[in-house]
Amino acid sequence: MEDELRSVISANAAFYEAFQALDFDIMCSVWHHTPHVYCIHPGWDILRGWESVRESWRAIMGSAAYMKIEISDPVGVVKDKTAWVTCIENIYTIAEGITTHATVASTNIFESTASGWKLVAHHGSPTGAVLSMNDEVEN
Amino acid sequence: MEDELRSVISANAAFYEAFQALDFDIMCSVWHHTPHVYCIHPGWDILRGWESVRESWRAIMGSAAYMKIEISDPVGVVKDKTAWVTCIENIYTIAEGITTHATVASTNIFESTASGWKLVAHHGSPTGAVLSMNDEVEN
Repeated sequence: MEDELRSVISANAAFYEAFQALDFDIMCSVWHHTPHVYCIHPGWDILRGWESVRESWRAIMGSAAYMKIEISDPVGVVKDKTAWVTCIENIYTIAEGITTHATVASTNIFESTASGWKLVAHHGSPTGAVLSMNDEVEN
Repeated sequence: MEDELRSVISANAAFYEAFQALDFDIMCSVWHHTPHVYCIHPGWDILRGWESVRESWRAIMGSAAYMKIEISDPVGVVKDKTAWVTCIENIYTIAEGITTHATVASTNIFESTASGWKLVAHHGSPTGAVLSMNDEVEN
């Protein structure tokens, strides 16, 4: 199981390498292309199914000019052919000459396939943010 | 597997019933009490281990006066003895006479135990929020 855990942590790192490199093709190869995959980008609703997830990455990678991602505190759990990793993403982006830094807490779920561990779910949420209050309703 | 999927969806509903009822003991019974559980409340960092997760619920339930939670669009996946459910939480709280409404996208991971499906991970993130930008760094 230790070997499997190392493989999952590597698969998790490969996801972030693809993200940082803004490499759409590698990002596609990291994911399992099945209807039950989903992705929740920070602040977004749930995107379900590979096509929706794929197009979200195409849009994100088409709009970002530079990205550096440092992962801290990755912790993995392996249960048979399923695994998940939680970590903190430190994301630095440059747009219009200004570097911004965002911190995101992430859950990444993987499944073991004939091609190795593939990502089936990514859920990222901004840390240090408060619960979004959409409406106030009079009593 | 259809029976297992129904059981997981029921376990997911039981989690939200405990949350809405602000019932700390039932909330504890919904979770698997192991070191590898974790919880990411909306906007929070990752809490790891049952003790940290338990104390966060104690604090949340001690401070909330009234809560109503409606779940929409729950989708579950079962893989052997592991399962996960994603859903949208519509949360209404009352504090100081004002009702507020928040929408949260959630990932809940469950494991099959001798006592049924138990929650091992809850990750909630505000929807409609933008990525939290903590710092601006000069180039």
